[in-house]
Amino acid sequence: MSSSPAFKLPTVADVVAARARIKDYAVVTPLVESPLLNERLGGRLFAKAEVLQRTGSFKFRGAYNRLAELTPDERRRGVITYSSGNYAQGIAAAAKLLGIPAVILMPADAPRIKLDNTRAHGAEVLPYDRHTESREAMGERIGRERGLVLVKPYDEIAVVAGQGTAGLELIEQAKARGAKLDAVLAPCGGGGLVAGCAIAVAAESPGTEMFAVEPEGFDDTRRSLEKGSPVPNAPGAQSFCDALLMGIPGDLTFAVNSKLVTRGIAVSDDAVRTAMAVAFNEFKLVVEPSGSVALAAVLSGAVPIRNRTVAVVLSGGNVDPGTFRDALARAG
Amino acid sequence: MSSSPAFKLPTVADVVAARARIKDYAVVTPLVESPLLNERLGGRLFAKAEVLQRTGSFKFRGAYNRLAELTPDERRRGVITYSSGNYAQGIAAAAKLLGIPAVILMPADAPRIKLDNTRAHGAEVLPYDRHTESREAMGERIGRERGLVLVKPYDEIAVVAGQGTAGLELIEQAKARGAKLDAVLAPCGGGGLVAGCAIAVAAESPGTEMFAVEPEGFDDTRRSLEKGSPVPNAPGAQSFCDALLMGIPGDLTFAVNSKLVTRGIAVSDDAVRTAMAVAFNEFKLVVEPSGSVALAAVLSGAVPIRNRTVAVVLSGGNVDPGTFRDALARAG
Repeated sequence: MSSSPAFKLPTVADVVAARARIKDYAVVTPLVESPLLNERLGGRLFAKAEVLQRTGSFKFRGAYNRLAELTPDERRRGVITYSSGNYAQGIAAAAKLLGIPAVILMPADAPRIKLDNTRAHGAEVLPYDRHTESREAMGERIGRERGLVLVKPYDEIAVVAGQGTAGLELIEQAKARGAKLDAVLAPCGGGGLVAGCAIAVAAESPGTEMFAVEPEGFDDTRRSLEKGSPVPNAPGAQSFCDALLMGIPGDLTFAVNSKLVTRGIAVSDDAVRTAMAVAFNEFKLVVEPSGSVALAAVLSGAVPIRNRTVAVVLSGGNVDPGTFRDALARAG
Repeated sequence: MSSSPAFKLPTVADVVAARARIKDYAVVTPLVESPLLNERLGGRLFAKAEVLQRTGSFKFRGAYNRLAELTPDERRRGVITYSSGNYAQGIAAAAKLLGIPAVILMPADAPRIKLDNTRAHGAEVLPYDRHTESREAMGERIGRERGLVLVKPYDEIAVVAGQGTAGLELIEQAKARGAKLDAVLAPCGGGGLVAGCAIAVAAESPGTEMFAVEPEGFDDTRRSLEKGSPVPNAPGAQSFCDALLMGIPGDLTFAVNSKLVTRGIAVSDDAVRTAMAVAFNEFKLVVEPSGSVALAAVLSGAVPIRNRTVAVVLSGGNVDPGTFRDALARAG
């Protein structure tokens, strides 16, 4: 039996307000397409190049929007969060712009570029073992001990609204080119990007379907949407999509996504490598594994594109050179 | 003794007219920057992402502008050109949009992606041996035999004016962000991009220095500018910058560049590999070797950037995966 959630949900007004708040610092990323790829697909494929966003992923949008709403007292105290690395960089960069101290829990095995850049933005990085430690519990405890404000990576209204600005831009950019979108696909970890985009799509492009894409073995959102309530992933799965290894949908994001998302899609690491190579060849963009899953879903036929117009979010480009080289070498 | 050239030179009015002519098909490419890289350099570095241009390089601009001025009779006859691969794709794509048959002479050892994409755009590709055959003589002969209009890759007013639209956009985009440019650097093969940008810079951003960047051993423009008249490269040099292996400056481009360019700069293939890795890490862009030489010049200190604002054109991204992987692996 489903009931109304006990908390307020973000609205398109929150997304519009977020856009105004982040506009001096966030990049309005281009919506790219490749005529040759369109010809091969028999349809029109747009890609929202969030790899060109400040810090190399969409995460800066939600991070800045969240920190901008802190009170002067909270700003002085500083913030703590946990992240596999893209939200980490987003928070670190936003905190630096706003003059806020930031402490960030990151998996010790996060990609080197994510660890290095988070530190380069001036944040204090505390590594943890993602196989044996609970980052949520650590974040709560250290935040309490050090008097820091805990900001979550996706399950907050300001974060979802900030990520939704990518969707709002995407819709407007497609309209400006005379295109009517049949579907939008976005990568899904905790579900913040998908939720934000789904809100924008539902309000500004009704009739466009919204899909959440996850790596195989980490398709908790796909299965939760099917079941109608949050279910966790089985332990032991592996994927090189390091930003999408969350165990269960967020409460807030699932409340949004269960209303607005058509369905979830799971893609294999092999399909992701192919998508990375296509983004390299056709779009000239460096896309990290997690950032490529939505493109992988379209290329593998999970959502039809023939005689249709489909948009994917290329959500991030923070990938170590070795991982990228290996993906290009092994791409099908 | 220098004298006025015997031919008309392109003006900024030609560049402005070109922009209007190409605007429905060419991409207004973004001017990107990286806050972390700026911090490390101690200055502000803009990169004009022409890798995101239609066909993956700036060449589409000049190609479309050139073909758009053909008469109906010339269009029916079709065109022939020669190119190491980026102008080839630009002409092939422009010809297809305009319904013009195109024949293109390309080096047999051009990157696979350039050969494949030129054919995919519907052009007829005739391979030649760039060590033993003269593409200019072949182009003249085949054009005469088959009644095709010869369009040159850089030494034509319409081509230079089209390439200059990249410079015009760059200047306007920098101004829109409140930046005053101290210097603009662009890759130099035949010199069309540099000439077009130099015209735009001289007219719209006086006081900004313009530099032409070439691979070591192919620095004919650098030496010609020093000498004051066109001098060829010595035979036998090697570089993996496959788009910049021209032997001597064009007559038209040299006439422009000798008036407007501050000086030429030569960079090593090692410096280019480093620049490709920096574009990968900091800009998330796939840049081909030839497209990276201007960035290489800044990173290697050939033009000072500390406390200054400098822009480079990342002119193309058509690189085979193997070449790119190797460059990332060997980057310093």
